Amino acid sequence: MNQTLEIPKTRSRGRAGGRAARKILRETRDIRMLPGLIRALPTCEVMDQEQIEKIDAASMDILENVGVHFRDEIALADWKAAGAKVVGEIVYLDRALVRDLIATIPEDFTYSARNPENNVRLGGAHSVFVPMTGAPFLRDLDDVRRNPTLDDLAMFHKLSHMSPALHSTAHHIVEPMDLPVAHRHLQITYSSMKHSDKMFMGMTTSPKNAEDVMEMCAILFGEDFMEANPVTTGNINGNSPLVWDETMLGAMRAFSRRNQPVLCSPFVLGGANTPASVPVTVAQLNAEALSALAYTQVIRRGAPAVYGHYLATVSMKSGAPMAGTPEISLMNFMIGQMARFYRLPWRTSNTLGGAKTFDAQAGYESATTLSAVIHAGANYIWHSAGWNEAGMHCSTAKFIVDAEQCAMAYRMAEGPKWHDFDQALAAVSDVGPGGHYLGHQHTQDNFQTAFFMPEMFDNNSIEQWKADGEKEITQRALEHARKLLAEYQEPQLDDAKNEELLDYIARREREIPAVDELNQTF
Amino acid sequence: MNQTLEIPKTRSRGRAGGRAARKILRETRDIRMLPGLIRALPTCEVMDQEQIEKIDAASMDILENVGVHFRDEIALADWKAAGAKVVGEIVYLDRALVRDLIATIPEDFTYSARNPENNVRLGGAHSVFVPMTGAPFLRDLDDVRRNPTLDDLAMFHKLSHMSPALHSTAHHIVEPMDLPVAHRHLQITYSSMKHSDKMFMGMTTSPKNAEDVMEMCAILFGEDFMEANPVTTGNINGNSPLVWDETMLGAMRAFSRRNQPVLCSPFVLGGANTPASVPVTVAQLNAEALSALAYTQVIRRGAPAVYGHYLATVSMKSGAPMAGTPEISLMNFMIGQMARFYRLPWRTSNTLGGAKTFDAQAGYESATTLSAVIHAGANYIWHSAGWNEAGMHCSTAKFIVDAEQCAMAYRMAEGPKWHDFDQALAAVSDVGPGGHYLGHQHTQDNFQTAFFMPEMFDNNSIEQWKADGEKEITQRALEHARKLLAEYQEPQLDDAKNEELLDYIARREREIPAVDELNQTF
Repeated sequence: MNQTLEIPKTRSRGRAGGRAARKILRETRDIRMLPGLIRALPTCEVMDQEQIEKIDAASMDILENVGVHFRDEIALADWKAAGAKVVGEIVYLDRALVRDLIATIPEDFTYSARNPENNVRLGGAHSVFVPMTGAPFLRDLDDVRRNPTLDDLAMFHKLSHMSPALHSTAHHIVEPMDLPVAHRHLQITYSSMKHSDKMFMGMTTSPKNAEDVMEMCAILFGEDFMEANPVTTGNINGNSPLVWDETMLGAMRAFSRRNQPVLCSPFVLGGANTPASVPVTVAQLNAEALSALAYTQVIRRGAPAVYGHYLATVSMKSGAPMAGTPEISLMNFMIGQMARFYRLPWRTSNTLGGAKTFDAQAGYESATTLSAVIHAGANYIWHSAGWNEAGMHCSTAKFIVDAEQCAMAYRMAEGPKWHDFDQALAAVSDVGPGGHYLGHQHTQDNFQTAFFMPEMFDNNSIEQWKADGEKEITQRALEHARKLLAEYQEPQLDDAKNEELLDYIARREREIPAVDELNQTF
Repeated sequence: MNQTLEIPKTRSRGRAGGRAARKILRETRDIRMLPGLIRALPTCEVMDQEQIEKIDAASMDILENVGVHFRDEIALADWKAAGAKVVGEIVYLDRALVRDLIATIPEDFTYSARNPENNVRLGGAHSVFVPMTGAPFLRDLDDVRRNPTLDDLAMFHKLSHMSPALHSTAHHIVEPMDLPVAHRHLQITYSSMKHSDKMFMGMTTSPKNAEDVMEMCAILFGEDFMEANPVTTGNINGNSPLVWDETMLGAMRAFSRRNQPVLCSPFVLGGANTPASVPVTVAQLNAEALSALAYTQVIRRGAPAVYGHYLATVSMKSGAPMAGTPEISLMNFMIGQMARFYRLPWRTSNTLGGAKTFDAQAGYESATTLSAVIHAGANYIWHSAGWNEAGMHCSTAKFIVDAEQCAMAYRMAEGPKWHDFDQALAAVSDVGPGGHYLGHQHTQDNFQTAFFMPEMFDNNSIEQWKADGEKEITQRALEHARKLLAEYQEPQLDDAKNEELLDYIARREREIPAVDELNQTF
């Protein structure tokens, strides 16, 4: 299979023309990023208009009457100045004010990557897949569970770069435990920037860390360019029910002031920090998201922002978060409807799960979630590769399989292809009853693109499978990961910018004490 | 966990009232069948009306101009009598004739089980889950792959009986290899009838075998009752492209003459026996299904019949059938639209896959398929538990997990529950920002029904998981299967009917030579 190394890469995809081109297509690994997904599949509309408005009204009632706790003096002052009623640290948001504020959030926008070919649009029918982040452990190339290092993080950034359906390298896919907590955000950001020319995410572990990310982005993209173009994404977690804290709000300000989008993500454990009701969990989450989205516009009118959430339901037997449950799918459908009601791009979480190994549980959980978020019409599809053990570890094997699953979901979301309908129909007449199509010219010309052939699924006979060494998917995926890493080619950073980034990091590492607290984000 | 054996079974589900009732609910296994599913989730409409009509027109063109090969003299004579153009063994079906014939197929109907509480409706929003059938191997309670026996088949019939979301015991879930091929259909049918009081399927391995099934059903339900009520289902496979053979057509006549529904199932290997095009594969499959559906009405006007298919795409690398691919999902969506266009109930296949063990591949494949068939709005959701290795084996572990997955999909398909919206919303005010809901009365009253808690998923911490013995899902599921089998109670057959069935079987076993050919159906 290492033959792929010796064959020149072709940039053509699909109809390259001629048998020779098809042979190259078959034998060459095409790692080019798929363009940002444009979904053609209809969204799953599980609520009617009246129910959507019922959720909206309930959320607005919550914002007006229950209020939201902003644990941050600057935010409280900002809200007072914006005309909200503030009692102690509770902000009561009038629905007219909320609607006015969120009206200036762009319905869609385009992320710029350092390679402009990898720019992607977000919002409406435009969706992107982003790998998982935040794992304090990994399962490595030998499937051993251990603490990650900066090298492990680099490995995941390389694999993200080489996975066509992943549109981003995210940021701290795994936590580089070999670095001081207080310095990690610098090296994490640099690793994202260096190992791929796709877009990436920005650390929000503290307001100052977020400022560092902004400065590094300014070096890479230029201050003026950033003013007009989103180049990274920060995640801002809420503490459900109805609390936003100082760390997150400060990080939000760092991003929103520079016109960089944040994901406004209530952290929902359904039944524990929300009522035991699907519609009212959505109503509370919606109120929480709206309160943060509105605040982005207090910080800077017109700044891009994304309706977010992290969503688990809780096992009342153990208190553990669950994934792949029917209610999570339903809530994704409903949240999608709410985001569209407000004309906002929205973020969800993909491939979540609680399995401890890459067993069938992990497969069921991930595929169920992936399907739900596609039918829900999610835009920013985060945690799309690697997540296992409730986010406690990133599995290298699962990362590879999830990334291929995203490519398959991408294909599904594009809908059926009708371009060659008449030619294919003519083949039915040509072949007739009882014939077969394998030798037909239309089949020869179209089989590469007509039916997806997943590399990570083994569909051979059991005899062939035994002859191949009885490999389960974990082993096959890890072998594939090693192969990809052997083929990896770094997309070179501009030398001057690279120097400037390294200088910035060195300076900040001198300035920041190496001991600091770790704020993890999901 | 064996405590469940000593606690009296309660028939109450959900709101039994009071803490004591909730305690019983938590500790007692409720194996009662879920009522036939009524889907509230909107179907995924991936084609617009024009595209639906384009498929319809293409199918009708195929039926009129390419024709269908009916390899059966009786069918050819029937078609001539019905006014079709017959040239050799090719039947050319005029679209007016096809439309006229399928118009008398009931849009929905109700299956009767021997326990009337387990009757289920099929068609429109009404769907049922039916376990897999036809496996020549099983992975048993020790996960050992081997040939099945009649006892193994009985085990799967018992597990089907005890799985709430399975609405049927099907028939030969595994092939009882310890019986002569020619006698199997008798013992398979008896095992279905004896070990459960849910509905079951009828063997169609030959016209005579199908007649035996009809006779046994007549003993169990009464000849007159059967005339008016569907009590079983036969599967009729087509040989794509555009061929129906003598065995299948003879079995179809046995069922349709007695007013028993058949699944008219073209056997599609996309790209091999159809063109390399998703829409035209659907057009060909649609033509094939319509030709068989129309023939059921030539046999008996008004007989129930189900639009069927078996659907795989083919790997052009190996020729192997694939499952869980994006095109299979898309084709399910499209086939659902065609069936609704003709106002026909339709059958699909669930949880298909090619994994050799119950690894993550199996999980991804199954969950992807399950999700697709729910969004597609399928009615007769066959192969819903146990399928692995492209149907070559039924996995006991997977059977358990799939059955729970069906219960989860059932819950999702019901849509969100709005009945307690106001009470749950009041809880948000009660709890306020920063609180938690675990102690709230609404949570206490509703957590059992608000969020599904899958038993087969382990969501505990890795420390707890290690303390519990580091069990992957295969082991957990097999332990669960043993527990279920220990608790199994046979729903007694009426003594007189049982005697009559055994007499019938004994007589037929004397009459039928023990050596015969095996015709497998999927």
